[in-house]
Amino acid sequence: MDVSANKGVSGDAFVVGVDFGTLSARALVVRVSDGAEAGTAVSEYPHGVIDASLAGYGELPPDWALQDPADYTGALAAAVPAAIRDAGIDPGQVIGIATDFTASTCMPVLADGTPLCQRPGLSARPHAYPKLWKHHAAQPHADRINALAHERQEKWINRYGGKISSEWQFAKALQLLDEDFELYQRADRWIEAADWIIWQLCGTETRNACTAGYKGIFQDGSYPSREYLAALDPRFAGFAADKLAHPISPLGARAGGLTPAAAALTGLPAGIAVAIGNVDAHVTVPAAGPVAAGKMVAIMGTSTCHVMNGAGLAEVPGMCGVVDGGIVAGLWGYEAGQSGVGDIFAWFTRNGVPGEFADEARRRGVSLQQLLDEKATAEPVGAHGLIALDWEGGNRSVLVDGRLSGAIVGLTLATTAPEIYRALLESTAFGTRMIIDTFGASGVPVTELVVAGGLIKSAPLMQIYADVTRRPLSVIGSGQGPALGSAIHAAVAAGAYPDVPAAAAAMGRIEPDVYRPDPARADVYDELYAEYVQLHDYFGRGANEVMHRLRAIRDRVRKAAR
Amino acid sequence: MDVSANKGVSGDAFVVGVDFGTLSARALVVRVSDGAEAGTAVSEYPHGVIDASLAGYGELPPDWALQDPADYTGALAAAVPAAIRDAGIDPGQVIGIATDFTASTCMPVLADGTPLCQRPGLSARPHAYPKLWKHHAAQPHADRINALAHERQEKWINRYGGKISSEWQFAKALQLLDEDFELYQRADRWIEAADWIIWQLCGTETRNACTAGYKGIFQDGSYPSREYLAALDPRFAGFAADKLAHPISPLGARAGGLTPAAAALTGLPAGIAVAIGNVDAHVTVPAAGPVAAGKMVAIMGTSTCHVMNGAGLAEVPGMCGVVDGGIVAGLWGYEAGQSGVGDIFAWFTRNGVPGEFADEARRRGVSLQQLLDEKATAEPVGAHGLIALDWEGGNRSVLVDGRLSGAIVGLTLATTAPEIYRALLESTAFGTRMIIDTFGASGVPVTELVVAGGLIKSAPLMQIYADVTRRPLSVIGSGQGPALGSAIHAAVAAGAYPDVPAAAAAMGRIEPDVYRPDPARADVYDELYAEYVQLHDYFGRGANEVMHRLRAIRDRVRKAAR
Repeated sequence: MDVSANKGVSGDAFVVGVDFGTLSARALVVRVSDGAEAGTAVSEYPHGVIDASLAGYGELPPDWALQDPADYTGALAAAVPAAIRDAGIDPGQVIGIATDFTASTCMPVLADGTPLCQRPGLSARPHAYPKLWKHHAAQPHADRINALAHERQEKWINRYGGKISSEWQFAKALQLLDEDFELYQRADRWIEAADWIIWQLCGTETRNACTAGYKGIFQDGSYPSREYLAALDPRFAGFAADKLAHPISPLGARAGGLTPAAAALTGLPAGIAVAIGNVDAHVTVPAAGPVAAGKMVAIMGTSTCHVMNGAGLAEVPGMCGVVDGGIVAGLWGYEAGQSGVGDIFAWFTRNGVPGEFADEARRRGVSLQQLLDEKATAEPVGAHGLIALDWEGGNRSVLVDGRLSGAIVGLTLATTAPEIYRALLESTAFGTRMIIDTFGASGVPVTELVVAGGLIKSAPLMQIYADVTRRPLSVIGSGQGPALGSAIHAAVAAGAYPDVPAAAAAMGRIEPDVYRPDPARADVYDELYAEYVQLHDYFGRGANEVMHRLRAIRDRVRKAAR
Repeated sequence: MDVSANKGVSGDAFVVGVDFGTLSARALVVRVSDGAEAGTAVSEYPHGVIDASLAGYGELPPDWALQDPADYTGALAAAVPAAIRDAGIDPGQVIGIATDFTASTCMPVLADGTPLCQRPGLSARPHAYPKLWKHHAAQPHADRINALAHERQEKWINRYGGKISSEWQFAKALQLLDEDFELYQRADRWIEAADWIIWQLCGTETRNACTAGYKGIFQDGSYPSREYLAALDPRFAGFAADKLAHPISPLGARAGGLTPAAAALTGLPAGIAVAIGNVDAHVTVPAAGPVAAGKMVAIMGTSTCHVMNGAGLAEVPGMCGVVDGGIVAGLWGYEAGQSGVGDIFAWFTRNGVPGEFADEARRRGVSLQQLLDEKATAEPVGAHGLIALDWEGGNRSVLVDGRLSGAIVGLTLATTAPEIYRALLESTAFGTRMIIDTFGASGVPVTELVVAGGLIKSAPLMQIYADVTRRPLSVIGSGQGPALGSAIHAAVAAGAYPDVPAAAAAMGRIEPDVYRPDPARADVYDELYAEYVQLHDYFGRGANEVMHRLRAIRDRVRKAAR
């Protein structure tokens, strides 16, 4: 799909998709007619993830993760013009722009969209900043939300597998209210970064169906009731009505035209279509080609998001959510996820591998992770004698418990770092199988498994997933799935296609059945998976809440030491 | 206790103690009158631990650990003369020699004491070699021994906490019979290295009360019956009568006089007293000063051995054994142990620590373990949020199960290598507390806790043990406890003292209450220990035998791949 030969061909129409990730944003210039990727550029966020300390405030408590919204607009200004230059096209050929974002990354803003952290005197207030998706300090608030929802038998709670995550809008807003009420009062609006960035592009507030449904508890046309919110905290009664409520727009709709200011920022023509905001995972589904119920797309990066369209509504235990039109208008969008995947591998690579391997990787000119991939998969399945639980970043599905933690069982004096690394790779594959099995058992069968995201570059990892799930793995045909998905939405918003499925069929790409399961390896993995399930249930379903207690002790003694 | 000023003073009588460890032997020259250490030397075994491959045979199966007996005599020839030189005394001042050994390290020999591995044509047969204490491949044989003992209600089984270890004489001999019956038949005798080395010194076979009792199931004057052994395997019926039986000698007795050949080997005078063989752990008790019931000595090295005299006989679940005169004649000697302690720290230091720490240690001129000790204990107790099980080398007490393995629970993406290291330090302290608690609950109270062995050099580790056990820790006053203990036995064998307690009072040394528990730290450790106990019982007492199954899968797939 290299269009380098066509670079700059006048007459072709292009769209720009911008994918806002955890550490950087990527802009992708895509040809409208066939999805060919003409040019791309990445811009790192100068502040990255603010999880250790905040300037002017000091050390942040455990589990906090903030970002600086100036990094978002800065990345837009840097990456979009660079991508246009890389494509070698005339900016005038661009007919629309769309973006996707991590979620739930949400923030308090004024009525004009100004983030509170950008107001004078508020830069040292942690709660004034966007709380990144992996901010996990609102778990006590999520617990209150969930307990009350079950007590009151709120019908929306089972749309979220029975649990609202600490990562989502309500838990994070309740934490703000609890811990910095003055700031809560100064926040006119509480908004997803996915919608905030659109506001910066088209000048008006919009709210997209995806984050409203998955992260904002918007179900069957309404948010949780004022009575429910008042029962959480009387001061929270007006939260949804005052700070969230706004007409919800379907995905692929036009949010407005690019403002002159945003045109100056990006170098694109003023007035071109700006699409309604999207989420990085969900927007990847159309990027992987034809839209179909039962086609699960696993977007594997620092974390993994499993998104799938279903024909009807079902309640899957521990899923993140099911939202009408949450992925593509007209179908029910299902989402599940694993809090840490690539994050776990990177953590171990940084913290658990002796220098000899780094030296060998340097000598051979490969990355340490490539070397570990190679060494880890040189032994037969099960030869390490290990089982790990993939909860170093908590568990998103199917246990929905951010206070869980990782575990490794089976260590001996002969265990090596590559063996532990492999057990960690496998643990995430077991986590994905647990999700697939739970969907199947709930009447939402997964009929096709597609992988996308940065981790698809690791063939050994992909083979483990095929073997563990006993399924052929299809691979998205683009290295920039979310950005391509955004571009597809930009094309629809610009009127180039009647709807997202039509645009996906023309512009999305998939390579079918790239990795096939090996029956002998899969047999051993069945044995290991049975052990995973037993440990998963023991540590995750209340038999031994040691992980919760260890975390509570940790937080208590750290607080006392400060 | 530096006697350098006295070096070579003629007239003083000296004894030599030789401590045969896992990787080397140490000779210590000690003044008879007061236990002053005059000189010492170490000799490494050229073959070390043979656990990966055997020349002429190839790769060894998992859990094997052999040694070469030529390394033992070689170490004697190197270390004894060097220690005499270091002491600056005349060899003629030496009146006796004694040795102690790892146990159960046992081997098949001919009637004249020749190890089978030294016979022509047998050097490539793994079973011809001494099986080191940490050879753990005889677990299936230990299982058979235990099941049958319980089935037949053999009265000796409860002298061993209800379980005979895979590390001991009978399990290892049964493995030999099972796997290389021809070699089993060629073995005239099956002997502890502790006794074999005495044979090399005095020219005649002896058997000591300590290894006969603790490792050889010798209780109330006899070995397991011919009927019992025949029920294990008809070919095994004569094992005890044919290959073990021999008069048992009390500790501190004279085995004989140093032979001319051994005198030539060691440079000592022919005819001086050679004491009956000893075990490294048990011989350390008199080295720690006055002998008393309830005084537990924990010898902490690659593994930890807990030895203690008791006034009477009790059956402690999961203890290694209780033996009449097993430590000092006239008292009941109790033994318990942890299979891996320093081994675990060394394993993690080699396999789990990123290069940046090794670089920092080099820059600062400290060892990596010293650096980790320092970093690990900089945080308050519980701040890492981790619990580990100390079973990377299996569990000796109180579960007596070599097929258990290590586990770590509570890992997060913020967990660092020093934090895991600390959790491993703590896990071994919890294991020791479990042993102390079990003794106390069985009517054998521990009234004083003394530490000895190489790990006493780590003050942070010692403080963890004091805090975890809530007990003051006394420290042995010699850096060479076993060798000093052997020297004490040599003095008794030479007739310089009437018995071991009298020699211990004169020659042993202790520093009382060096580390005292901190109540605040101990409180947090109580919480963590409660978590340890729950995981210990879950993984170790049958609720989830995942560790056994993972090991079985590992062994099966490795075997299939060979």
